Amino acid sequence: MVTDVCVVGAAGYAGAELVRRLIEHPKFNLVAITSDSDAGRPLADLYPSFTGQSDLVFLPHNAPEIKKCAAAFLAVPHKAAMAMVPELLDAGVAVFDLSADYRLKDAEVYEHWYGVEHTSPELLEQVAFGLPEIFRADLNKIASNRLNGKAALVACAGCYPTATSLAAYPAVEAGWVQTPVYVQAISGVTGAGRSANERTHFCHANENAEAYGVATHRHTPEIEQILGIPGGVLFIPHLAPLSRGLLSTVTMRLTSEAAAGFDLQEAYDHYHKFYEKSPFVQLMPLGTQPRTSSVAGTNRAQVGLAYDERTQTLIATGAIDNLCKGAAAQAVQCANIVFGMNETTGLEAMANPV
Amino acid sequence: MVTDVCVVGAAGYAGAELVRRLIEHPKFNLVAITSDSDAGRPLADLYPSFTGQSDLVFLPHNAPEIKKCAAAFLAVPHKAAMAMVPELLDAGVAVFDLSADYRLKDAEVYEHWYGVEHTSPELLEQVAFGLPEIFRADLNKIASNRLNGKAALVACAGCYPTATSLAAYPAVEAGWVQTPVYVQAISGVTGAGRSANERTHFCHANENAEAYGVATHRHTPEIEQILGIPGGVLFIPHLAPLSRGLLSTVTMRLTSEAAAGFDLQEAYDHYHKFYEKSPFVQLMPLGTQPRTSSVAGTNRAQVGLAYDERTQTLIATGAIDNLCKGAAAQAVQCANIVFGMNETTGLEAMANPV
Amino acid sequence: MVTDVCVVGAAGYAGAELVRRLIEHPKFNLVAITSDSDAGRPLADLYPSFTGQSDLVFLPHNAPEIKKCAAAFLAVPHKAAMAMVPELLDAGVAVFDLSADYRLKDAEVYEHWYGVEHTSPELLEQVAFGLPEIFRADLNKIASNRLNGKAALVACAGCYPTATSLAAYPAVEAGWVQTPVYVQAISGVTGAGRSANERTHFCHANENAEAYGVATHRHTPEIEQILGIPGGVLFIPHLAPLSRGLLSTVTMRLTSEAAAGFDLQEAYDHYHKFYEKSPFVQLMPLGTQPRTSSVAGTNRAQVGLAYDERTQTLIATGAIDNLCKGAAAQAVQCANIVFGMNETTGLEAMANPV
Amino acid sequence: MVTDVCVVGAAGYAGAELVRRLIEHPKFNLVAITSDSDAGRPLADLYPSFTGQSDLVFLPHNAPEIKKCAAAFLAVPHKAAMAMVPELLDAGVAVFDLSADYRLKDAEVYEHWYGVEHTSPELLEQVAFGLPEIFRADLNKIASNRLNGKAALVACAGCYPTATSLAAYPAVEAGWVQTPVYVQAISGVTGAGRSANERTHFCHANENAEAYGVATHRHTPEIEQILGIPGGVLFIPHLAPLSRGLLSTVTMRLTSEAAAGFDLQEAYDHYHKFYEKSPFVQLMPLGTQPRTSSVAGTNRAQVGLAYDERTQTLIATGAIDNLCKGAAAQAVQCANIVFGMNETTGLEAMANPV
Repeated sequence: MVTDVCVVGAAGYAGAELVRRLIEHPKFNLVAITSDSDAGRPLADLYPSFTGQSDLVFLPHNAPEIKKCAAAFLAVPHKAAMAMVPELLDAGVAVFDLSADYRLKDAEVYEHWYGVEHTSPELLEQVAFGLPEIFRADLNKIASNRLNGKAALVACAGCYPTATSLAAYPAVEAGWVQTPVYVQAISGVTGAGRSANERTHFCHANENAEAYGVATHRHTPEIEQILGIPGGVLFIPHLAPLSRGLLSTVTMRLTSEAAAGFDLQEAYDHYHKFYEKSPFVQLMPLGTQPRTSSVAGTNRAQVGLAYDERTQTLIATGAIDNLCKGAAAQAVQCANIVFGMNETTGLEAMANPV
Repeated sequence: MVTDVCVVGAAGYAGAELVRRLIEHPKFNLVAITSDSDAGRPLADLYPSFTGQSDLVFLPHNAPEIKKCAAAFLAVPHKAAMAMVPELLDAGVAVFDLSADYRLKDAEVYEHWYGVEHTSPELLEQVAFGLPEIFRADLNKIASNRLNGKAALVACAGCYPTATSLAAYPAVEAGWVQTPVYVQAISGVTGAGRSANERTHFCHANENAEAYGVATHRHTPEIEQILGIPGGVLFIPHLAPLSRGLLSTVTMRLTSEAAAGFDLQEAYDHYHKFYEKSPFVQLMPLGTQPRTSSVAGTNRAQVGLAYDERTQTLIATGAIDNLCKGAAAQAVQCANIVFGMNETTGLEAMANPV
Repeated sequence: MVTDVCVVGAAGYAGAELVRRLIEHPKFNLVAITSDSDAGRPLADLYPSFTGQSDLVFLPHNAPEIKKCAAAFLAVPHKAAMAMVPELLDAGVAVFDLSADYRLKDAEVYEHWYGVEHTSPELLEQVAFGLPEIFRADLNKIASNRLNGKAALVACAGCYPTATSLAAYPAVEAGWVQTPVYVQAISGVTGAGRSANERTHFCHANENAEAYGVATHRHTPEIEQILGIPGGVLFIPHLAPLSRGLLSTVTMRLTSEAAAGFDLQEAYDHYHKFYEKSPFVQLMPLGTQPRTSSVAGTNRAQVGLAYDERTQTLIATGAIDNLCKGAAAQAVQCANIVFGMNETTGLEAMANPV
Repeated sequence: MVTDVCVVGAAGYAGAELVRRLIEHPKFNLVAITSDSDAGRPLADLYPSFTGQSDLVFLPHNAPEIKKCAAAFLAVPHKAAMAMVPELLDAGVAVFDLSADYRLKDAEVYEHWYGVEHTSPELLEQVAFGLPEIFRADLNKIASNRLNGKAALVACAGCYPTATSLAAYPAVEAGWVQTPVYVQAISGVTGAGRSANERTHFCHANENAEAYGVATHRHTPEIEQILGIPGGVLFIPHLAPLSRGLLSTVTMRLTSEAAAGFDLQEAYDHYHKFYEKSPFVQLMPLGTQPRTSSVAGTNRAQVGLAYDERTQTLIATGAIDNLCKGAAAQAVQCANIVFGMNETTGLEAMANPV
């Protein structure tokens, strides 16, 4: 049985990646893609890699095809998502929202960081957070809700929170670390989106590294929520000259209790056990570190661990492709779970070895 | 039914790409990979993208597993290939050779350009040239030979000859063009191989464009052989700072006969018809040009056409991924044909849209 | 004695490069920079490399300071330049125009390729073409005109014409070659300017090579004019993922007369003699090829030669930095000559060795 | 008066950059360059940017020319430097050592981190640390020593310690911060040197970000020594795909005393005052962050500040060109001081604006 799905907001980078994933998916059938600004244009016009591979044409967001789908993937900006989601849920469409609108459980925190009023806070109780390795149980609950005819809404995790949490969660959840947790991350330029501006100009981004949004980036509260340490994260993103790839380096000072007799191999074993049922997370052998290029173009994540005895600090690193595990492919992973398929369906591909 | 295969010379870039393709292939079963210099090392050690995806360990080239395979993919340097092929064929192994050793039909031409004696020239008559879009009939013949228990040897086309010929062949074969045909191409750095040297150093290749091997590159006679114009090609390769991707721009002055009343749309239609049964070649709409990034990581090729009335010159451009359509994936495409499968088996993936 | 100068249109890439050159120049004194769209903003705001180095603020184009300068460097688009030049010349300002408006001697050719009417064709007779290595005599004449109180207008050469002509001119002028001359060039992305659009987006340009403007690029007639072969050039530019650098590869079929007994060393010697008084042109040893990175950030050009006996074709390659020798620094070189200074004043810096 | 100088170990990247700087320097006269492995080869052979600019040929390290120089710049690896320095000092040559051999005041710390015995620990007392913005007084002392005929030895700071200390020192020295201080840095690939290996291969470094040497990098004790907090630094370097550029992001938790009523503008003013006599350090306006490309190819550093109230953490960022301010140009800056010149002599150039 094939499930009809659509991508709302398919002209952006995450949207286009979703389109690719869904065209290649053996069980989902992509029937509609939308973009208000590009309505009427063929997909291959915007993204020539689809030339000869797909005849899809952008529809407007309000195209009637959308509500006929079993699932809608939303890759529109925050606020725009909120404006569509309640109606889609009412129409019985399962929604996988890649925006930030339903990620934060507390509407006040959302309103503080995003500066807009939340127009459907009542949905925040029933949403599942789309980071399967940590919240798989919540996604399974949405799956059974869906079978029972209830609304199915998944707020897919952001790119930085995904890489950061996969690296830090097992340690934080085990109670090993003090706050603040310091998160420094490096993102490729696809993270800045398709919009052409000074920051995304080749000649600005090329041959350059820089920090941005220091201590003010909106992924901060999302990371804190996942890790369960409100007010406990300092997040510093950086931009580097690569297209795809996100590396998060998390420095976590151990509590004096945890530091006493801390054993890195035991920590490694703890992580290993934590991820043993997560096919997309690969723990790197101790002494090696993840490379973003090893996961580029895939839904995989690599996680590395190191320990500095001198400062009693655990360093966890997480590498993902920001558009894949950090956005589009992870949304498909969530949808696989919600639709009762194997989590890896359509997402098995490995990265280019070089 | 699953067919056991191996990759001989799997530590290089084309070899590693073959390994990835064959692990993902639904019908071929990769049972052995070899490298004399890295024998004993796990694959994931050299190429960390395989971490957690494959437990394969490099065997030496002479491992007995090789001859038990139905097919061997050879990604060793020229001369090394020649030293292995006859024995493998004798053992009944179908050989897909990515080296130059069996590409040139005339052993003297080979010896002139490669400076080594050909040690099995008798095989040159029975080899098929591995460029399916142009020599599919020869590959089909090898397929039936194989079923009849005869030796099956395919000399897979080089990267520059593949992109160049896909762009130029329909025009040259139609008799439209004068010689010399001028070929200028741009290659990504994976084309220079895994060997770490001054040329492949990041800081040498980055932020630089340069020509190399001007008029002396060994792919020249291979292009001439495919196009059927011995002595008629000037080939000028360039290096640019990208990892994967090869763009060949071919300038072909028309004969005065062909120039009289030349119509670009008709030429386009001729190309279209020529490639209508070739699922991996995509002709770009007139007025647009192929982009290497649109085919990176795939077995696809994009071809573009333009005409300059002022100089009566047809310009054909061909874009491929040098490691995929230009090497490993094309070898798998050839093997698919020789083993009676659909040409596209295991090679359907599209490029990253961005 | 210090000469007051200004840059009109300083917010673009060539303009900003001019500003840098003129700030560092020992004899020119940069007193004003203009940009209508950025008027009022500090230079360092747009280009943070000037932070702490310059307090200049953009003025509007019509700022009165402009006409008080001894020289104005114009880095505005074509058509905009034409609208300003006559008035500046009337005010006694020497004008170094980086646009295309006064490059083509024949107003009809200009109008054909640029699609706009020429509003001051009478100036075309008195303009000098700003490519000192080939037209130094014309620049010297402007220098003496200036001393005699006459208008001084220099139309600085375009980037592709500069690299192409430095490579091809000595051979074409010597009568060795047939037409058409085929020019294929690779440009860095600064060549596409500061405007942020799909083409200049990092994620579009990165990891990609593509041809563009095939046979239709407006630098075609400029190259033909310099080489003296109207209708005789096919020009095919390509974009590659580097910021600065332009490599032009020119394939020139020899006349049968020239081919008979052609000697590459003699050709080399001819080139060497041709450039012996040109400090910025460096002929590469035979057997080596220029690298764009060897001249990046400088006013230098490297030229390479090779010969293909088989097709009787001379290959000349020219490497420059498109923003320096291809635009801003060459304009300063022209100004040095027109103001009676040593041609190399302020332009001596070498490229980063790596 | 011109001072004869030489570069020992000129074939590596820092050495070649020194050569460029010294050729362009108005007061130093570069008379000899050495490389044991490349002795006899012309400089332009290894670094084609010198083609036509310099006829220098590599001499062996023990060439007699070296000891006749007033100053020697040593760009050989650690241990190799130690083997040469005492003899050079005895010969009256002022030594600017770019290796780590004389940077650490405590020979035991050196031996612990570098795993080799220190063969001239007696020199550690008289060496000046080559980071003028922080240790200018020590360099001035060496200058007067030199005039008095005493040995002059400068241990030039490492690249990571330079960027990190310029960012962190004013805050640490003021007693505002707790330990541990967390240092995360991103370096371009020139930092890995000229040696061609897997890590420096274009196809390994391109499109990738990764951490390396986590908590074990040898620059750790050097940073601790400069900041005066032994055992108080955790240092995590990363590699990103750029050639030149180093960004250090330092997170410093304030003491509760300092945090009470901390005012970022006051901190900024403190930094501003600290660097008011340091022409190469540029403090970025609050709200903006340094970009490595803004200082590439120059001896400049940009420093940025931000404060996170939530975690009471001060974030200081420092951007330099690792080969210039992080190595060769800073050595020249030190030499300028030691030879009584203006600190900026020969180092005034600004970065490419784009």
